[in-house]
Amino acid sequence: MKENIYSERMESLRCELSKKRLKAFLINNIKNIWYLTGFKGSCALLLITKKENFFITDFRYKEQALKEVVGSNIVIPKGSLLTAAKSILKKIKIRRIGFELEAPYRIYHSLKKDFNPTPVDSIVEKLRMIKDSQEVSFIKKAIERAEKAFKKIKRYIKKGVSEKSIALRLEEALKIEGSRIIPFQIIVASGENAALPHAKPTERILKEGDLVIIDWGAEAEGYFSDITRTLLIKGKNLQKKKELYKVVLKANKKAIMSVKSGVKAKQVDLKAKEIIKKAGYEKFFGHATGHGVGLDIHEFPHISFHSKDVLQEGMVFTIEPGIYIPEIGGVRIEDMIYIDNNEKPIVLTNLPKELEIIG
Amino acid sequence: MKENIYSERMESLRCELSKKRLKAFLINNIKNIWYLTGFKGSCALLLITKKENFFITDFRYKEQALKEVVGSNIVIPKGSLLTAAKSILKKIKIRRIGFELEAPYRIYHSLKKDFNPTPVDSIVEKLRMIKDSQEVSFIKKAIERAEKAFKKIKRYIKKGVSEKSIALRLEEALKIEGSRIIPFQIIVASGENAALPHAKPTERILKEGDLVIIDWGAEAEGYFSDITRTLLIKGKNLQKKKELYKVVLKANKKAIMSVKSGVKAKQVDLKAKEIIKKAGYEKFFGHATGHGVGLDIHEFPHISFHSKDVLQEGMVFTIEPGIYIPEIGGVRIEDMIYIDNNEKPIVLTNLPKELEIIG
Repeated sequence: MKENIYSERMESLRCELSKKRLKAFLINNIKNIWYLTGFKGSCALLLITKKENFFITDFRYKEQALKEVVGSNIVIPKGSLLTAAKSILKKIKIRRIGFELEAPYRIYHSLKKDFNPTPVDSIVEKLRMIKDSQEVSFIKKAIERAEKAFKKIKRYIKKGVSEKSIALRLEEALKIEGSRIIPFQIIVASGENAALPHAKPTERILKEGDLVIIDWGAEAEGYFSDITRTLLIKGKNLQKKKELYKVVLKANKKAIMSVKSGVKAKQVDLKAKEIIKKAGYEKFFGHATGHGVGLDIHEFPHISFHSKDVLQEGMVFTIEPGIYIPEIGGVRIEDMIYIDNNEKPIVLTNLPKELEIIG
Repeated sequence: MKENIYSERMESLRCELSKKRLKAFLINNIKNIWYLTGFKGSCALLLITKKENFFITDFRYKEQALKEVVGSNIVIPKGSLLTAAKSILKKIKIRRIGFELEAPYRIYHSLKKDFNPTPVDSIVEKLRMIKDSQEVSFIKKAIERAEKAFKKIKRYIKKGVSEKSIALRLEEALKIEGSRIIPFQIIVASGENAALPHAKPTERILKEGDLVIIDWGAEAEGYFSDITRTLLIKGKNLQKKKELYKVVLKANKKAIMSVKSGVKAKQVDLKAKEIIKKAGYEKFFGHATGHGVGLDIHEFPHISFHSKDVLQEGMVFTIEPGIYIPEIGGVRIEDMIYIDNNEKPIVLTNLPKELEIIG
């Protein structure tokens, strides 16, 4: 079973390569290598040729490679990984090789004399965009871990505690739920800090009337989840903040409703922006509406104005509109969405998202 | 004071650029940008020209950039950061630009039509190699946090507990000590797992006679520490394991003694390898003897066979020889070293490193 997944993925990749008339392809992106071979370490190159795959890593990962890597010859060179890849290419007389557009320029530089290196844009990333049922189950597990951890620590989110202490408790709870790594630094942004979409937790103490944005994720079998909820602390003059929340929640729901197989990702972004624009907050929503999630926390599809992606069955991505106003604070509500074989959006996130005012 | 540090660093960089006759340089490495501007976020480009610096980031980091960035014009474009950099280059009529050799090929690809992009290898990284007194104090703080956390949880390292639970406790303790991020996934490798130099913590329960490698680090003001200690659990037939420990400890001490300003980094690597070779374990020590530590966990100088670095005053790096034997396990002892203005090695790590057999 497990073997099959990797050989199917390699097959799909070879099919894409043959469309580009590439007989060899060098992969350095470590998550792409994980996806294609099962290797979970942090340093390797994968050389794909018409007949064979060569997984090249260094001494430190030898034992791990022997355990994990499926469907490739394992090469442990004495010198650099790239030198090893080049001597394989020479041996099998490859004269033109594809490499990843996002690869370090250094790789191109080293190949250009002998191998006519040809950049290839996001070829494995586009395969990764469509999740199989096992991948979806891992993502669901990562969501479950994130939600359970949040529920456990929720009672600590209140007036008088610091952003940092909430982040620390949440991180601990995520680890206890089984998340081996924390996919990104947890955001706990309160009061004026909530006006910074990517704020880091500070020593700031939560106060009456604060909006508190919490953005966190968990991991399961290498796959990630990404959720944001915004809470409001009881206080005076909350009218404006409640209104912001209402607008963002509406944008979140309407954008989700616009998700469908065959729709342009850009349209979903526009839908969220449209709601926020109508309410008069256009200039306070500067980021994209969402992004794919999988082995990386940001992957295809991009749910943004510039996106060329078309939504398809098997995609998993976030919908996370927000409004951020200096001095007042901010609201972001982020769910994870899956397009199943009914072509309709399934909201994978289960945490309630109606406004909650904390006592 | 703070302003001065960044302008001095920019000055040193401009000096290196003028040696290469480069009038403009585009930096994408986020730690290099931190080093030169003070920006601690995760997405930016820095364009350095003869007269001015342009710090380019997106909407999400606007507030943070305004708070943190020193000595640069802040640019928040609507489109991509690279497009913004290109339009600045056009405006000021730059026709040849340096870029980082490790930059994504995509950047080169986008510049090559109009700007004669010229790869530059590790120019900022080489500046970062020499630490000033403030940087050293941050690193010392990161070591202090790592050591305090270890001392707090040490009594949990014993027969009957799992690798994972030790790693979890250590991580929690590091966070409580003030480490905002964990620089790399903590290694707790026991028994046969200790034969994998880069093992991840598993559910394996520590047993009698196990060697247990613990490799961890902390953070302070963005700077990291990196330490390894190996413990032995009481048991029978420990002779061989004690011998391995003795050899590695000797290699650690002798390599440290060989550190001196003016010495080739390669020589220090050779010294450690020589001790291990003499004891007959040559083929069980496959990694480099050490690496620089700072804003990145692995930086210059490289203490390895391939290194061309020469040790100098102001450098901070690890010395971490190890022996790894399948079935038996492994030993690694890692200290952090600083070369001060007496040109002698100062061992920054304070944790004892004589063999400790845990009851």
